[in-house]
Amino acid sequence: MNKNILIIPGDGIGQEVTTWGKQVLETVAAKYGHEFRFDEAIMGHTAIEATGSPLPDETLEKAKASDAILFGAIGHAKYDNDPSAKVRPEQGLLKIRKELGLYANLRPILLFDELLEASSLKPEVLRGTDILFFRELTGDVYFGEKTRSEDNTFASDLMNYHRYEVERIARKAYEAARTRNKKLCSVDKANVLETSRLWRDVVQEIAREYPDVETEHMFIDNAAMQLVKNPKKFDVVLTANLFGDILTDEASQIAGSMGMLASASIGDGTGFFEPIHGSAHDIAGQNKANPLASILSAALMLDIAFGLQEEAKVVTQAVADTLKAGWRTGDIANAETPLTHVLGTNEMGAKVLEYLR
Amino acid sequence: MNKNILIIPGDGIGQEVTTWGKQVLETVAAKYGHEFRFDEAIMGHTAIEATGSPLPDETLEKAKASDAILFGAIGHAKYDNDPSAKVRPEQGLLKIRKELGLYANLRPILLFDELLEASSLKPEVLRGTDILFFRELTGDVYFGEKTRSEDNTFASDLMNYHRYEVERIARKAYEAARTRNKKLCSVDKANVLETSRLWRDVVQEIAREYPDVETEHMFIDNAAMQLVKNPKKFDVVLTANLFGDILTDEASQIAGSMGMLASASIGDGTGFFEPIHGSAHDIAGQNKANPLASILSAALMLDIAFGLQEEAKVVTQAVADTLKAGWRTGDIANAETPLTHVLGTNEMGAKVLEYLR
Ligand SMILES: CC(C)[C@H](C(=O)O)[C@@H](O)C(=O)O
Ligand SMILES: CC(C)[C@H](C(=O)O)[C@@H](O)C(=O)O
Repeated sequence: MNKNILIIPGDGIGQEVTTWGKQVLETVAAKYGHEFRFDEAIMGHTAIEATGSPLPDETLEKAKASDAILFGAIGHAKYDNDPSAKVRPEQGLLKIRKELGLYANLRPILLFDELLEASSLKPEVLRGTDILFFRELTGDVYFGEKTRSEDNTFASDLMNYHRYEVERIARKAYEAARTRNKKLCSVDKANVLETSRLWRDVVQEIAREYPDVETEHMFIDNAAMQLVKNPKKFDVVLTANLFGDILTDEASQIAGSMGMLASASIGDGTGFFEPIHGSAHDIAGQNKANPLASILSAALMLDIAFGLQEEAKVVTQAVADTLKAGWRTGDIANAETPLTHVLGTNEMGAKVLEYLR
Repeated sequence: MNKNILIIPGDGIGQEVTTWGKQVLETVAAKYGHEFRFDEAIMGHTAIEATGSPLPDETLEKAKASDAILFGAIGHAKYDNDPSAKVRPEQGLLKIRKELGLYANLRPILLFDELLEASSLKPEVLRGTDILFFRELTGDVYFGEKTRSEDNTFASDLMNYHRYEVERIARKAYEAARTRNKKLCSVDKANVLETSRLWRDVVQEIAREYPDVETEHMFIDNAAMQLVKNPKKFDVVLTANLFGDILTDEASQIAGSMGMLASASIGDGTGFFEPIHGSAHDIAGQNKANPLASILSAALMLDIAFGLQEEAKVVTQAVADTLKAGWRTGDIANAETPLTHVLGTNEMGAKVLEYLR
């Protein structure tokens, strides 16, 4: 198989972890006789520093021309603490999602048995959890009109949804539910929000096309609670952009750490694969970040973008083997982990490559 | 002390639990020689059935005339599954918050040692947690303009904040932080939302008036994650209406159950005290609901509305004593609880009264 892959490391630890996602793809190509050609581009804070824009035209062109994109992370504290900054790293990520039509963000909460103890949740609460989130990614309050009064006394963001936006992601989620346990939970705040009432209306309609899938509707506040109380009760979770942002970060604690979670953003064209963690500037450049989310993002790319299920499985297995052998990065180590088994980013990445080969 | 208290049981289990909050207030009055006069009013589904309106004028008048309000719960599945319903129970709650100017919703996450094991979180993660949430309650996407296109293909909700709305709740939160551990975490999504950037701007400004309080700003997705990962790191948490709704429900798992958490909504006039749990129609009328959140709401009323700290402490102690003696409702029982110690709503309420007398 011949594929063009664009690597966008982005900001902070994005740089360090993405190199391991890429090496995994190279190793897979060598092992299975595929030809993956790599190109690289900049985005976020890194791109602002170099060009003034968080998403340079060149990056967008390369992105559109590629078969799949492996992305790192975005953001920088400099902008976070300056509420009046006009140009911000995150604009690059939001714009590429919009421009590539990446309306469906898949976030599987994959629980490795070896990490049952790494979570703050009790093992018996976690065991058996397997959730697949479908987060809508190009609508909601993220993209509606924003205003700020000249005298700085008022600000607004428009939360909005079009019927077709809900329909297309709902169909994707129902299709996935069919291949899993035929259970779907749609999360909204229909007791308060008009957009949620439209959302629920559309989901109820699409649900009729999938009578074999059991549908549940849940309010976001309740879902945020149930996810901690009894994560096993969820299977496919379908939700809007903002609620999905919050719920999936929360759910990362099920997997033990944000450093374990990969995501796939798909839509009409090129797919976009990235860890759900952020740029974590506090540990950037210190060889401390967990590269597994980037490696698992590469696995998602193989599976979803290229249809290489076998290769994807082998990568995931290499991660499982690494964990089974007791290797940990700091974020997934616990009091019982021998210090000799706590590895840096590069050592952990190299271990996975060993098991992969 | 002479006070007029309005009881609004509301919907579902609201009826059953509020009777115990009220009896606790009566017992306190008898014990300490106060005169509490009670009146009752309807709201929510119950009020829609009786009058067509979720907040009848008579209820609002009684509310304004009272010194404090003890509320139960609101909502009914009938409306949840009908996205096109024009009149909804929740409108009653939202309207009374707005009409009474209840802009600050205080939600203390009180952890009773006896319930460490009731949570899905590990006891060592929980131990020592003590969080006080300040949720803004009369702004945000809850109250901004809502639209729905005639052809039902588009819906919107305006998320908005005025500077003064952020200022007044921020001051309340900083004042509280001063009396506690001088730590405040403000939660927003300033990397995406203009309202959050205004929010952060204002909080940074107010923070300068409280140089003795350490301020942290955190994104909502990260906060939803940290709250599960390491709840102990939070002390006073200040956030907007929607984010507060989500975070406090999530945080209820720290206390073991939603059935344990009370809240106080305060502002310019009469204070409003209510459990954070909902109407739970699935268990309504079955003597299964946990009355402790209503009883602890009564304690908050004594403390915050009437300044009766001693009386409030005695009520909280009666709850602690009940738990220490091993008494549990179903929601806070676990595998080790002897069946003989799992009580119904009324038996649990009666136990607290015993310890209180
Ligand atoms: C960086 C930020 C804009 C982004 C989001 O909120 O979508 C991130 O939190 C994510 O979840 O991918
Ligand atoms: C019932 C609902 C409107 C309400 C809210 O979202 O504010 C409830 O969830 C709460 O937290 O008090």
